[in-house]
Amino acid sequence: MHLKTPEHQVAGHIAKDGKPGPLVDDKGRFFKPLQGESRGDNEVKFYESFSSNTEVPDHIRRYFPVYHGTQAVEGSDGASMIVLENLLFKYSKPSVMDVKMGSRTWYPEASEEYIQKCLRKDAASTTVSSGFRISGFEVYDHKELSFWKPDRKLLNGIKVDGVRLALRKFVSSNTLSETSSKSDSAFASSVYGGSNGILAQLLELKTWFESQTFYHFNSCSILMVYENDSILEGNVDDARPQVKLVDFAHVLDSDGNGVIDHNFLGGLCSFINFIRDILQSQDESSAENLHSSP
Amino acid sequence: MHLKTPEHQVAGHIAKDGKPGPLVDDKGRFFKPLQGESRGDNEVKFYESFSSNTEVPDHIRRYFPVYHGTQAVEGSDGASMIVLENLLFKYSKPSVMDVKMGSRTWYPEASEEYIQKCLRKDAASTTVSSGFRISGFEVYDHKELSFWKPDRKLLNGIKVDGVRLALRKFVSSNTLSETSSKSDSAFASSVYGGSNGILAQLLELKTWFESQTFYHFNSCSILMVYENDSILEGNVDDARPQVKLVDFAHVLDSDGNGVIDHNFLGGLCSFINFIRDILQSQDESSAENLHSSP
Repeated sequence: MHLKTPEHQVAGHIAKDGKPGPLVDDKGRFFKPLQGESRGDNEVKFYESFSSNTEVPDHIRRYFPVYHGTQAVEGSDGASMIVLENLLFKYSKPSVMDVKMGSRTWYPEASEEYIQKCLRKDAASTTVSSGFRISGFEVYDHKELSFWKPDRKLLNGIKVDGVRLALRKFVSSNTLSETSSKSDSAFASSVYGGSNGILAQLLELKTWFESQTFYHFNSCSILMVYENDSILEGNVDDARPQVKLVDFAHVLDSDGNGVIDHNFLGGLCSFINFIRDILQSQDESSAENLHSSP
Repeated sequence: MHLKTPEHQVAGHIAKDGKPGPLVDDKGRFFKPLQGESRGDNEVKFYESFSSNTEVPDHIRRYFPVYHGTQAVEGSDGASMIVLENLLFKYSKPSVMDVKMGSRTWYPEASEEYIQKCLRKDAASTTVSSGFRISGFEVYDHKELSFWKPDRKLLNGIKVDGVRLALRKFVSSNTLSETSSKSDSAFASSVYGGSNGILAQLLELKTWFESQTFYHFNSCSILMVYENDSILEGNVDDARPQVKLVDFAHVLDSDGNGVIDHNFLGGLCSFINFIRDILQSQDESSAENLHSSP
């Protein structure tokens, strides 16, 4: 089995201080090391529960990575890893963004130390103000013909305006490193809009979150991805935008108390409103162009 | 002008330590003292802004008390009061519940002392877990022919199960002080259900909150009320259930940053799910009765 480091990881843990990072094989599988302090065990517990939960409808299941169990991996000190679907396997030039959902990333059952750490990060980022924060992204730059990835420290400090700009950059054809240039959001309607676009997928997830009481998705992320290869070939409408939920180390069963995950849902509604705003401003500028044409 | 203490106040400030409490007149107006530490001024600011905001649609405006300005009130040390519509004026035997919305009642702009105080209350109540907490209620007891109002200290300690029970008691015909008796939820379909019921009104509010970015309703309450007189006269379907938003001392303008109030909205979605659960369990027990009848 030939394993290598994934090319387009935008957030989450990486190989560091002798600890293994995630790996991918050439058959479309993603190997995720178990995190410390029972987080890894908790994530396995979630995947086991979710993959056998017959009450999760198929149209919702497709927003989660396929789970292939756990496996001891050679060359990685024989450590046990979670084996998942490699979400980027079928994309050759993917733009990717990781958005951590919820207006709080802590939960009452966690340790006091963890809660305080989360509270500080939540207040310093857009988590409290906007109900989500951008953890990382990588965009294919159509002018430079290369990938552009902002520094994580740069991202940590952004406020609401920065989030709005990042969500525009994510679907723009301009050179992205130039902060002065106005993002053209050229691919907004193809990626965010349409019956199979990001917005439509988010709305489908929202409907499920309005009634599901199985899980509380603390500190989970929404991963957005689309293909740039087809756009380069002139086929903008074949961008295959996709939403996936990832990172379940802090998911809790609701223990049958029947309460929905209002923390994730509130953040999701806010995120939806950001995406909808971009689509609407695109519509307006198209209408303006139409009116100003001779 | 003859002013008196309102009969059915279930939460909020009352006359205490020489400070005036709220008053009502015989023409359907409610006089609310301005709270200290700029909270009163902030509430007036909200009412002035909201009542002149032409972008709030009429079908949403009806969920807010009508605002009649401020007025110095005689016999109350000449203190200035906010003059509002008396929401209970047209009800003779109202059942009333005050539900404080949101999974947090604090906001980053507040003082550190206020934030810490809120955090403690939020974690001790169902605010963090359920996205709302019951601040108070008063129910007309159809067996005892009198009003029943749980002690505020009793309410402070209730968890998710207690909330569920309170929401059933609120629409039940049994004697309410007996904790052993099972609430029959006899009026659930008339009060919570139907095209003009509580659930329909909450869903209308939810739609507005999914896109409104004018105000962030920190520490606001939803007041639910219905009439028992008509039920006593055998007309269950004339209960006139009504949802109103109250308490705007901590409302903030969103300063045009375009973010929805995801904190209120998440809690509202959770509250809607509690109400919907009660209606569904009523449907199921009706269906069972139907099947078991000869």
